[in-house]
Amino acid sequence: MADDQANGSQKKPWIMNAFAMMAPGHLAPGLWRHPTQEPQTLDHWVRLAKFLDESGFHGIFFADVLGIYDIYNGNGPALKSGAQIPIQDVALSISALAYATKNLCFGITASTTYENPYALARKFSTLDQLSNGRVGWNIVTSYLESAAKSYGHEELIEHDERYRMAHEFMEVVYKLLEGSWEDGSVKADKKSGVYVDPDKIKKIDHAGKYYKCAGPNLVSPSPQRTPFLLQAGASKAGQDFAATHAEAMFLPGMVPEKTRDIVKSMKDLLVQKGRSAGSVKFIAGIFICVDETDEKAQAKFDDLMQYADLEGTASLFGGWTGTDLSKFSDDEDFSFTGPPAIQSMITAWTKTVPGTEGQKWTKKHVLQQLAISGAHPRAIGSPQTVADIMQKWIDEADVDGFNISYATTPGTFEDVVKFVWPELKRRGVLSKLASQSQSQSMREVFLQDGGGPTVRSGHPALQYR
Amino acid sequence: MADDQANGSQKKPWIMNAFAMMAPGHLAPGLWRHPTQEPQTLDHWVRLAKFLDESGFHGIFFADVLGIYDIYNGNGPALKSGAQIPIQDVALSISALAYATKNLCFGITASTTYENPYALARKFSTLDQLSNGRVGWNIVTSYLESAAKSYGHEELIEHDERYRMAHEFMEVVYKLLEGSWEDGSVKADKKSGVYVDPDKIKKIDHAGKYYKCAGPNLVSPSPQRTPFLLQAGASKAGQDFAATHAEAMFLPGMVPEKTRDIVKSMKDLLVQKGRSAGSVKFIAGIFICVDETDEKAQAKFDDLMQYADLEGTASLFGGWTGTDLSKFSDDEDFSFTGPPAIQSMITAWTKTVPGTEGQKWTKKHVLQQLAISGAHPRAIGSPQTVADIMQKWIDEADVDGFNISYATTPGTFEDVVKFVWPELKRRGVLSKLASQSQSQSMREVFLQDGGGPTVRSGHPALQYR
Repeated sequence: MADDQANGSQKKPWIMNAFAMMAPGHLAPGLWRHPTQEPQTLDHWVRLAKFLDESGFHGIFFADVLGIYDIYNGNGPALKSGAQIPIQDVALSISALAYATKNLCFGITASTTYENPYALARKFSTLDQLSNGRVGWNIVTSYLESAAKSYGHEELIEHDERYRMAHEFMEVVYKLLEGSWEDGSVKADKKSGVYVDPDKIKKIDHAGKYYKCAGPNLVSPSPQRTPFLLQAGASKAGQDFAATHAEAMFLPGMVPEKTRDIVKSMKDLLVQKGRSAGSVKFIAGIFICVDETDEKAQAKFDDLMQYADLEGTASLFGGWTGTDLSKFSDDEDFSFTGPPAIQSMITAWTKTVPGTEGQKWTKKHVLQQLAISGAHPRAIGSPQTVADIMQKWIDEADVDGFNISYATTPGTFEDVVKFVWPELKRRGVLSKLASQSQSQSMREVFLQDGGGPTVRSGHPALQYR
Repeated sequence: MADDQANGSQKKPWIMNAFAMMAPGHLAPGLWRHPTQEPQTLDHWVRLAKFLDESGFHGIFFADVLGIYDIYNGNGPALKSGAQIPIQDVALSISALAYATKNLCFGITASTTYENPYALARKFSTLDQLSNGRVGWNIVTSYLESAAKSYGHEELIEHDERYRMAHEFMEVVYKLLEGSWEDGSVKADKKSGVYVDPDKIKKIDHAGKYYKCAGPNLVSPSPQRTPFLLQAGASKAGQDFAATHAEAMFLPGMVPEKTRDIVKSMKDLLVQKGRSAGSVKFIAGIFICVDETDEKAQAKFDDLMQYADLEGTASLFGGWTGTDLSKFSDDEDFSFTGPPAIQSMITAWTKTVPGTEGQKWTKKHVLQQLAISGAHPRAIGSPQTVADIMQKWIDEADVDGFNISYATTPGTFEDVVKFVWPELKRRGVLSKLASQSQSQSMREVFLQDGGGPTVRSGHPALQYR
């Protein structure tokens, strides 16, 4: 595996992101109790961003939710465990993080279901200007009923209808970001006194099924115009949306071969839609717990697990799958029967988690397997072990890199840099970004195709330029 | 005037704010061409905020608009002159500015007409946490038709209806910020493992005429809970709104005696509404151009005026008053007849601007008087002259302080600190905030009543606690 001469694909630098949330627990409810967890103040996030930047991480992606997880025994378990609640509006911290860093890119989650496209275009234009082109938009349609009811809706809009709205939302945003201010519209010419050339500004006068917007955008074109577009849709409608709009895609999955199937079908879909198969980067979620040896890493993980909150974990699981585990007793055995969401996870774990074959899967076992890492694979072990697991994902799942989730901040990321980085460097897969003096746009950092900061040919945004 | 022993009121420190906008021109279209105007990057604003903070300014208030001024000859003149366009979403820069400063407070404009109350509550809770209590919300209902059409409306919602919506909007926001998380709800207790006590969290289940929201707020209570509330309504509906909700009010006006009448009637209105007459701070807008002597200051102003863009000024005037000056020829004489908005300004200028009595007021004269300062009074002269004008406003208009607008940044503010500060210090009206080691919430900084960071008794927010 470590023989980086044998396989050319191993030499391609991997995309490495921190996967985070501005809440006391992202995927690891209860870990806020761990002695090494720092209070997550703005100062904490600024210091973490600087550390990631200096270490050569490509980005930090902030997930978001707009309501409280309440399928499992109401909202009590989520609140008690701090499972993704309270949660700040992450877009508001980005300027401080961007100001403190040079190369680090920021993935920012925003919902097409609840935001206004005119306001959203202004938001990302502003953030892209403030960060000099280092922002991406993680496009979500929001799955929590509790969010719908707080945003003034009677109920959650049906899944595929949300995606139909999202397609039109994107059209409005593209018109504003690509079509309303021509290249060269901002003169700022002190001699002629012309700041903006009015002839190069166009209203968009969008009037569709879901949205109306006159335009133009309030902000002049930012380095990327359209922010780098990220998406994580796993459903058919979600995959179709991603194949149309996304430039990087977060992939779920515990089994590399299964993820490879998704990558393959996504690439086919891209080509069908007239985009190149390589126009989307695929990023796998992973949780890493690493130390000098496998034994030390396992001991570290066992220590972390003492702080995991299984009630909070059940709460998140309820939101992700719609399956309410409170309906089952603690010793309910899911080994051979139970909700489909659990059955498919057990099948995946049995295939991939060492020592689980043939084990009994009670509700508690299931929650322990979901704790800390959520539905992401766990890489626990020595630098060599962790790098091998990552290599397996790169090779077998055909992904381009990773979203690394944490048990604690900055602990998890400090460990990754301390232990895994030297091993990845030896394998020649660590990007040299950190030592670059020229900062690049997020699109350039992720696509690495020399294509500049704006969207690539074949992307639907271009038709509105 | 300078005898600060004679009048106790002169000893009260004045509230001093910078009045700004994240656009190439705020009230002074064309001044971006001046050689001393720095490019207004994030770095520029961070450096300005630090300078203001270290100099003892209380705050920086950011105005905002959500569309392009287009009443005067369409949107061409506004675009050409950079008159409040392009304009960034200011809320997104605040974390960088707050992170770089210690005491400076931030007034942030947000519109009840176009924002969602659940999202707005989250926004201000987040900003208040990030800044440790140093944010205020300048509540506007947005007067530009162009904004309405870009936010998906057929037309601008009628003025008083906007204020009816705004009242209910505030109710939803108060319920979220004051009523959905009890004091002590966040335990973050590592021993018991309880992050939030669910018994102290309440849904708000608001279902009114304009808004529906289940709640609770997504963010735990910030230092101020409800951000410090600022308002500038000049209409009857606006004044009623301010008397109900505002804690500081921006006052328009060129004539101190007229502003005193507004202050007086606002104080009466406050008492009628069961709030103390001193529960709102009154802040006058002012433009300052200062140098060692009156002559040098006048020469400096004459230099600035060379860069003023009168077309951009006419564009702003159109948005503020609804009066389209393109319908009049350049030498139209408004001295005795013309649109009411202009007539009342001419009356005010004749009373207050030295040497204007009996002068002819052509369209050009009117625009020259509005250029740079907008409809704010100008204080041009030596430190003594400027301080005397400010003193007159404090004494005769009964205001508590100033929003100081700029011709250029940081130039105008550097001049104010260099020339006016020593004179104000001598008069004993300069706050000692800058040397305080303890940072305070915006509410404490502005009210100076020892009443802590949250809303005062009599304020309607309290009934939702």
